[in-house]
Amino acid sequence: MNSIGTRFRFTSFGESHGTAIGGIIDGVPARTIIDREYIKSQLSRRSGNGAAGTSRRAAAEKDELEWLGGVIEKDGLLIALGSPIAFAIRNTDARSEDYDDMQDILRPGHADYTYEQKYGIRDIRGGGRASARETAARVVAGSIAQQILKEKGVEIKAELSQVGNEKDPKRFDDIITQTLAAKDSIGGIVSCTITGIPVGVGEPIFDKLQARLAYAVMSINGCKGFEYGTGFEGVNIKGSDIYHIDEIPCPASGGIEGGISNGLPVSFRCVFKPTATIAALYKGRHDACIAIRAVPVVEAMTAITLSDLVL
Amino acid sequence: MNSIGTRFRFTSFGESHGTAIGGIIDGVPARTIIDREYIKSQLSRRSGNGAAGTSRRAAAEKDELEWLGGVIEKDGLLIALGSPIAFAIRNTDARSEDYDDMQDILRPGHADYTYEQKYGIRDIRGGGRASARETAARVVAGSIAQQILKEKGVEIKAELSQVGNEKDPKRFDDIITQTLAAKDSIGGIVSCTITGIPVGVGEPIFDKLQARLAYAVMSINGCKGFEYGTGFEGVNIKGSDIYHIDEIPCPASGGIEGGISNGLPVSFRCVFKPTATIAALYKGRHDACIAIRAVPVVEAMTAITLSDLVL
Amino acid sequence: MNSIGTRFRFTSFGESHGTAIGGIIDGVPARTIIDREYIKSQLSRRSGNGAAGTSRRAAAEKDELEWLGGVIEKDGLLIALGSPIAFAIRNTDARSEDYDDMQDILRPGHADYTYEQKYGIRDIRGGGRASARETAARVVAGSIAQQILKEKGVEIKAELSQVGNEKDPKRFDDIITQTLAAKDSIGGIVSCTITGIPVGVGEPIFDKLQARLAYAVMSINGCKGFEYGTGFEGVNIKGSDIYHIDEIPCPASGGIEGGISNGLPVSFRCVFKPTATIAALYKGRHDACIAIRAVPVVEAMTAITLSDLVL
Amino acid sequence: MNSIGTRFRFTSFGESHGTAIGGIIDGVPARTIIDREYIKSQLSRRSGNGAAGTSRRAAAEKDELEWLGGVIEKDGLLIALGSPIAFAIRNTDARSEDYDDMQDILRPGHADYTYEQKYGIRDIRGGGRASARETAARVVAGSIAQQILKEKGVEIKAELSQVGNEKDPKRFDDIITQTLAAKDSIGGIVSCTITGIPVGVGEPIFDKLQARLAYAVMSINGCKGFEYGTGFEGVNIKGSDIYHIDEIPCPASGGIEGGISNGLPVSFRCVFKPTATIAALYKGRHDACIAIRAVPVVEAMTAITLSDLVL
Repeated sequence: MNSIGTRFRFTSFGESHGTAIGGIIDGVPARTIIDREYIKSQLSRRSGNGAAGTSRRAAAEKDELEWLGGVIEKDGLLIALGSPIAFAIRNTDARSEDYDDMQDILRPGHADYTYEQKYGIRDIRGGGRASARETAARVVAGSIAQQILKEKGVEIKAELSQVGNEKDPKRFDDIITQTLAAKDSIGGIVSCTITGIPVGVGEPIFDKLQARLAYAVMSINGCKGFEYGTGFEGVNIKGSDIYHIDEIPCPASGGIEGGISNGLPVSFRCVFKPTATIAALYKGRHDACIAIRAVPVVEAMTAITLSDLVL
Repeated sequence: MNSIGTRFRFTSFGESHGTAIGGIIDGVPARTIIDREYIKSQLSRRSGNGAAGTSRRAAAEKDELEWLGGVIEKDGLLIALGSPIAFAIRNTDARSEDYDDMQDILRPGHADYTYEQKYGIRDIRGGGRASARETAARVVAGSIAQQILKEKGVEIKAELSQVGNEKDPKRFDDIITQTLAAKDSIGGIVSCTITGIPVGVGEPIFDKLQARLAYAVMSINGCKGFEYGTGFEGVNIKGSDIYHIDEIPCPASGGIEGGISNGLPVSFRCVFKPTATIAALYKGRHDACIAIRAVPVVEAMTAITLSDLVL
Repeated sequence: MNSIGTRFRFTSFGESHGTAIGGIIDGVPARTIIDREYIKSQLSRRSGNGAAGTSRRAAAEKDELEWLGGVIEKDGLLIALGSPIAFAIRNTDARSEDYDDMQDILRPGHADYTYEQKYGIRDIRGGGRASARETAARVVAGSIAQQILKEKGVEIKAELSQVGNEKDPKRFDDIITQTLAAKDSIGGIVSCTITGIPVGVGEPIFDKLQARLAYAVMSINGCKGFEYGTGFEGVNIKGSDIYHIDEIPCPASGGIEGGISNGLPVSFRCVFKPTATIAALYKGRHDACIAIRAVPVVEAMTAITLSDLVL
Repeated sequence: MNSIGTRFRFTSFGESHGTAIGGIIDGVPARTIIDREYIKSQLSRRSGNGAAGTSRRAAAEKDELEWLGGVIEKDGLLIALGSPIAFAIRNTDARSEDYDDMQDILRPGHADYTYEQKYGIRDIRGGGRASARETAARVVAGSIAQQILKEKGVEIKAELSQVGNEKDPKRFDDIITQTLAAKDSIGGIVSCTITGIPVGVGEPIFDKLQARLAYAVMSINGCKGFEYGTGFEGVNIKGSDIYHIDEIPCPASGGIEGGISNGLPVSFRCVFKPTATIAALYKGRHDACIAIRAVPVVEAMTAITLSDLVL
């Protein structure tokens, strides 16, 4: 379904080339002052912002946000009323003609086939609901969640930590530029750290903190894996290597023990596949490395999840 | 919280050395014939069943299942009434004396510290609610879910695919025996494949199939990561390597595109850390490789998740 | 919170004199053709439509519906995509000046006091979120739900069955006109009948059909009571009067036995208090009998509830 | 389904003549001391406790409570661990032979017909899941909820306020005794008052306090109507009669305005039909007035609902 969370609940709507995308955010405390500039900056990061390897048009996407309910403008400030906050971003730049020759094409590694099978109808204009454009609405909700958390001392920071095999950030631009020139695409890893999180966040046995984070992050387009703490590389670690009776909480814990935050920074990583529609085969907007634009979306989904658990 | 799912909902209870563990399973179709032998065999796999590296006592755990409601015995068959199925497994082998000297110890990499902080009380007898014993209840619910799925042609099969660096199953026993002898522990990876899953399972944009699976699997004790399809190793793959316009559905998809099953087998992997309480430091029951006993639990959580999405 | 339902889920937003009211409807089957004329006619009923006792301005409310997502226009038809349907109705007629002198007034029998206490902020313009204007969004969602149900043979019909002590519909207009002239208000009862409902709707033991209907209907502004079957007057009936072993299903059942529909028409009644802000004391828009405009809202909430249980 | 609530969640199981009835209570704060005597006294009220008109056997029902998880016994006290509390009450007095001649009978006004239609199977022994015996589990959960609320200053008190047409409690016993002698049954009304409830409880626009209370109470067997504040009799009241600008909060509000508690006592009433299976027609246990035994169940459902909203 299109809702996430119970106390802090975000419901998303919109197709990539329909009228608008947007959503409803339920649970924002009354009198929260909405930081419009921060939302704008996160939307700008998500739209690529001229970064290497994101399509030129991406930067030009005008993510004009309209507030439909739940807020009141007063003395130049946007203030939450405590009622559900509704917003929409119009799809002004809906150049569906690029997609015209895709009308009969089911793109591999995309949702085209499964959506057509499940819904019996497919909005071919730019991938419809399955398009990554939908993540802009997540970023709006997530930015507000980040703000609520920040007031409680919790900060979320994600960054691109690997592109292909490369782990040195200084080399990322080169690799992406080459990939773009080759009309190809490449995978990437996003690392995320949550600082200032109090002890006690997470609700065992199912709503463990790592389970809720994995759920939220794995719902982002193109994400193929999630790990925290010692992660997959930890398969080769021995118990005697990492556990020492005098270290509580455990430094190798990734900030979570028994599904509950232990007060250490929580850190996790997630991997994004190379985008399936590469420029060599398809027209339309394509990124060389979707992980770049996923960074603020990872922050958003993390913030939405934490707000739900903390409020 | 201690419930998972909405249409097929499992609610779990019990502490490892309290009176019992068990649960309530809501949503089992009336007239389902419960396969008690299958449940027993899955519980036996979970209890280690004499496998290398599981504590001797584990095998001796008598997981005697008592049915408290939702079923009727008729002509030797156990039949679901359509009402919630309740069951309990008594903790007969509650040897809490082994844990006596842990009364004042907070074990690293365990939930001891976080539970004490969150709840202000800790059931020191064997880890209380955070103990892996709780997963026996999951296995009961999961076995019934597997049965419901099997009638619809869906089969779930998990197996240990890596121990430490080793990927050859023929070598697993040796490594675990050595680890056990060293009073140490080691990590492992469990691979799971779902066959016969129809096209269309998964509810975007948040309840994507991979997101729901990640949530369910990451809630298992000791699980540190989840991946599907190309996973983390896919970070180094190029789009041109895997996507070919004439292959729909995409073989590299892991069986899921756009969050919805595409009819191919769904395959995912998850990693389990070495257990924190190693025999070199602590008394009590310890496994050399918890991934072994996690195998049927991974199947159970997968089945619970799919039943909820399919029913 | 502002969502209702799980399979058919409606999330509402908007303040009476803010930018817009509207909502997101999740769970509408793909390829449903939206009947815009029906929605319009239900909105017109809700806005009073010139009926006696509704403010003149009410009829002039232009409930211009804008579709923001989840639908596609094709050959003059509005077709559901299977994704969440989002809509907004602009508040064009926001004459908040009438409410200016209420700025410091807390109106009795309204949400003014409780909202101010709960949220620490109150959108004084026309009651904000607590205004009955919010029910227009319910009517949009409910009309679509009614359409889905109609295709399954289920019809919902509500009507005003009592005004004050009067039960003869031919007398309603007179009473309301007199009440209006006296700048006063009066209570009313709405009766609702669901026909064509199949046997088996309702999910005991908590989601009994009558419990879900009561929840939905009691959430409508001004509703003070719900009853079905023999209702409150049945307190004086004896078992021997109504139960006869040869009548199955039971005619006195109100269509529900054991929380599950029994195939007979389901009928219930709900009472609406006289509106608290009477014209004798306050400016602004006031109805002499809010039960009149509640009729399509009762239908809407019934349809939303049934769709969630039936889908 | 068989769960109610999200933060304070009660999941119920059990058939009237199966092995046991019971449930899981999730959300009880760690270190709550469970008042076993209070639970026992409420169970005793529910079982009739020798009151006029309840079957003799009812009083003999031994509701022996077994705690299966979530609690620890310490120094004679039963203390909540913060984990889900599970309990069972064995059905020791399962005299299903009385029901033998009902094997082929579908009782009117009971769930027999609808359960058989919905589930295709019916547990004929005493009504199975649809029996009022299931409410004993609600009383256990509700008693714990009442205790949590009491610590916050909130008290819930229900009482029988009408039997047939009679509103004078001094006359109730006579009427019920006569009804019993006539092998008949009669309806009743239960009134409930919540005192000490803080301002601000209730979550508009759907989870209004009255909507949540109506949902909870209407799920009790035999309940046919719910009203609060001016209720159904208020249909004949005029706005000018009850609303006065200088009374905030409004005395006629029933303690709820805009769906949110206003600090006044919350009072509501609910009606119970005469039981359908009257002694003149059927063997088995039958009450002359089920409203008597419903009193502690109404308190329980009210407490479960409030705990969920307040925690």
